[in-house]
Amino acid sequence: MRRLMTTTLALATGCLLAGTTMAQSDEEQIEYRQAVLTVIGGNFGPMGDMAQGEIDYDAERFARNAQRVADLSRMGLEGFEGGPHSGDTDAKTAIWDEWEEFEQGMADFEAAARELAEATEGGEQDLSDIQGPFMQVAESCQACHDNYRDN
Amino acid sequence: MRRLMTTTLALATGCLLAGTTMAQSDEEQIEYRQAVLTVIGGNFGPMGDMAQGEIDYDAERFARNAQRVADLSRMGLEGFEGGPHSGDTDAKTAIWDEWEEFEQGMADFEAAARELAEATEGGEQDLSDIQGPFMQVAESCQACHDNYRDN
Repeated sequence: MRRLMTTTLALATGCLLAGTTMAQSDEEQIEYRQAVLTVIGGNFGPMGDMAQGEIDYDAERFARNAQRVADLSRMGLEGFEGGPHSGDTDAKTAIWDEWEEFEQGMADFEAAARELAEATEGGEQDLSDIQGPFMQVAESCQACHDNYRDN
Repeated sequence: MRRLMTTTLALATGCLLAGTTMAQSDEEQIEYRQAVLTVIGGNFGPMGDMAQGEIDYDAERFARNAQRVADLSRMGLEGFEGGPHSGDTDAKTAIWDEWEEFEQGMADFEAAARELAEATEGGEQDLSDIQGPFMQVAESCQACHDNYRDN
């Protein structure tokens, strides 16, 4: 039974897991964290467009994206663990020289993102009410990027 | 006041949002959805390793990753909207020829991922109790990949 389960699992998941099993390589770590940041940006971008009046404010979409950013904010740190990593990355080695500060920066981002998600919950707020919490998130991103990203 | 806010926002978010503002290009759509799938894989991979006995089962980590996959499962569909898109993609054009079926496949994935997250909530279950729901998710991924992914 166990062998059948293992075989079935291997068949079902083999295609999915090629390249992601066992300890992740440096390249996989880099790709993972870059992917997390890309998804964050893809959700935060439209929020910024609305906050800046570039596109119409859609309270429900803003709230949905804010919740996503809050969820995603917790997923990135592990992509930096065990570095520095060799490969195509903009991560400065200062991250690992100042790991506690970097961790705190991530924690600040998570907290700001959570507060924004809470502030927008229900998707009914006026834009003027959520621009403050939105700015807090933008500034938390910028704080880390200033210190720890190469471009 | 409004101009100051707009300027401040532009400064604070400019670096963050370069390339992600306004309507997304084909390339941005492709990069976004590939990033969502990469983050899903980075979380689902270790779950598969545990389910197959390749690494020790860690119920809390499994539950944490399952919740992430459930959250992520809802983020991908919009990356496919408005296609097909020109660029470096493995997405088959069948996706847009059979959009309702593709949407249903995504909905099936979301449902299976949600059930797995619920089954693992609390991070205390035995591996044998969650292998069934885990397999449901793996199979839902495979079903779409068989029909709609080029490799």
